[in-house]
Amino acid sequence: MEVLNARSILVTGSNRGIGLELIRQLAEGRNQPEWIFATCRDPDGPRAQELRNLAAKHQGVKIIQLDTTDLSSVKAAAATVTEELKGTGLNLLVNNAGILMLNTQETQKTMSETYETNVIGPMIVIQEFLPLLKKASQESPHKGMSCSKAAIVNMSSIGGSITRVNIPKAVSYLCSKAALNMLTKCQSLEFVKDEILCIAVHPGWVETDMGKSVGQPQLTVEFSVKEILNTLAHLSEKDSGTFVDWEGKIVPW
Amino acid sequence: MEVLNARSILVTGSNRGIGLELIRQLAEGRNQPEWIFATCRDPDGPRAQELRNLAAKHQGVKIIQLDTTDLSSVKAAAATVTEELKGTGLNLLVNNAGILMLNTQETQKTMSETYETNVIGPMIVIQEFLPLLKKASQESPHKGMSCSKAAIVNMSSIGGSITRVNIPKAVSYLCSKAALNMLTKCQSLEFVKDEILCIAVHPGWVETDMGKSVGQPQLTVEFSVKEILNTLAHLSEKDSGTFVDWEGKIVPW
Repeated sequence: MEVLNARSILVTGSNRGIGLELIRQLAEGRNQPEWIFATCRDPDGPRAQELRNLAAKHQGVKIIQLDTTDLSSVKAAAATVTEELKGTGLNLLVNNAGILMLNTQETQKTMSETYETNVIGPMIVIQEFLPLLKKASQESPHKGMSCSKAAIVNMSSIGGSITRVNIPKAVSYLCSKAALNMLTKCQSLEFVKDEILCIAVHPGWVETDMGKSVGQPQLTVEFSVKEILNTLAHLSEKDSGTFVDWEGKIVPW
Repeated sequence: MEVLNARSILVTGSNRGIGLELIRQLAEGRNQPEWIFATCRDPDGPRAQELRNLAAKHQGVKIIQLDTTDLSSVKAAAATVTEELKGTGLNLLVNNAGILMLNTQETQKTMSETYETNVIGPMIVIQEFLPLLKKASQESPHKGMSCSKAAIVNMSSIGGSITRVNIPKAVSYLCSKAALNMLTKCQSLEFVKDEILCIAVHPGWVETDMGKSVGQPQLTVEFSVKEILNTLAHLSEKDSGTFVDWEGKIVPW
């Protein structure tokens, strides 16, 4: 069975939920990356305590401040990661940070704030980390695409599937995830020449704070993340530009 | 052959391009609506001269100031339209206003401004005109849904089809149109109980200023709008929540 074999991985929004569990399983797995960059908005705040505990136990985990809505913060994080990597590239970028606002009526503010974090954030993160992803692709001896070589994983949601949506709730979130899916497709087309794999992933309805805010989730965080890491390990160029669930099954746009 | 038989229609962004041609064909057609509300950002400016000429010739055409990014302007326009309609409803709302920015690299600003006009704009316009659409639906003697009874038409683009996109150009525009398609789908679910038809329309690659900015368009504005009006005349509840082109053919999400 193939396993994820990336030397360096960065996960945004990694102080809780799926992001935190990704860091935990990567740090505790058999195939530990040399560098695990765990980014969050407030590394010193009370909501990053679990992440700090994790980093204290695992030398490979580096906590880095990154607010995806603040370009200067994204640039500073990219500079720090570049320095840490000592001339090597970044294999895997996981755009996991995202927000969900539950409103009875959407407003200009809820729509624009959700879009800023869930779509524009991933876009500027990719722009700033692109040189490192290209470097990882160029320095790889392998042909084709894989998450072990150079890849962008955008955490989307089944809610972003226009085909599947059947309850018009949290419209700001649904619109943002449909747009994130479009961004993923565009990036897959743009980066095909660089052999950078781009994919949108629906993690399932997971027992995170976000998942629990909309009802009774179906999957534990641990199970979802285990399946996602397994799915990522098996992706190749034929999967770039698609939208898959935790098990790797195609989700319609 | 069925024809569009709406008593009242509102079109945003109607001072040029597809919006202006919609107003022209509605005003000059055999089945003139009693009220044609032609909205634009600056009714007194030089870019609305053609629209003013048209309104001078046709009594039914009422020009109203409406900036889709300005909530107070949208509210004022809804109040004016409510007064004009003298207690009757609005049959057809066409969210036509939209922008396309061609940038070599998208920024936070290009992304958020495009989203504000192309997605949030239609959303707040619908929120403010919803009472008039509901009234039109309630006062209609007809069962089911139609554009002659009560409908929202969101001008989308083939660029918003994640399935079809093959050139990652104008990413801010493509993301906004994918999100607008999601908004349309959500609205179709939300307003099914009110019998308000909601649809996203791809007008074709049309000889407008916008169409010409990205190459050599395939359709004249006159032809596209003639076909769109014909398509709208034939829509029913089975079409609500879909994405169709000028001829009424389904476009994949």
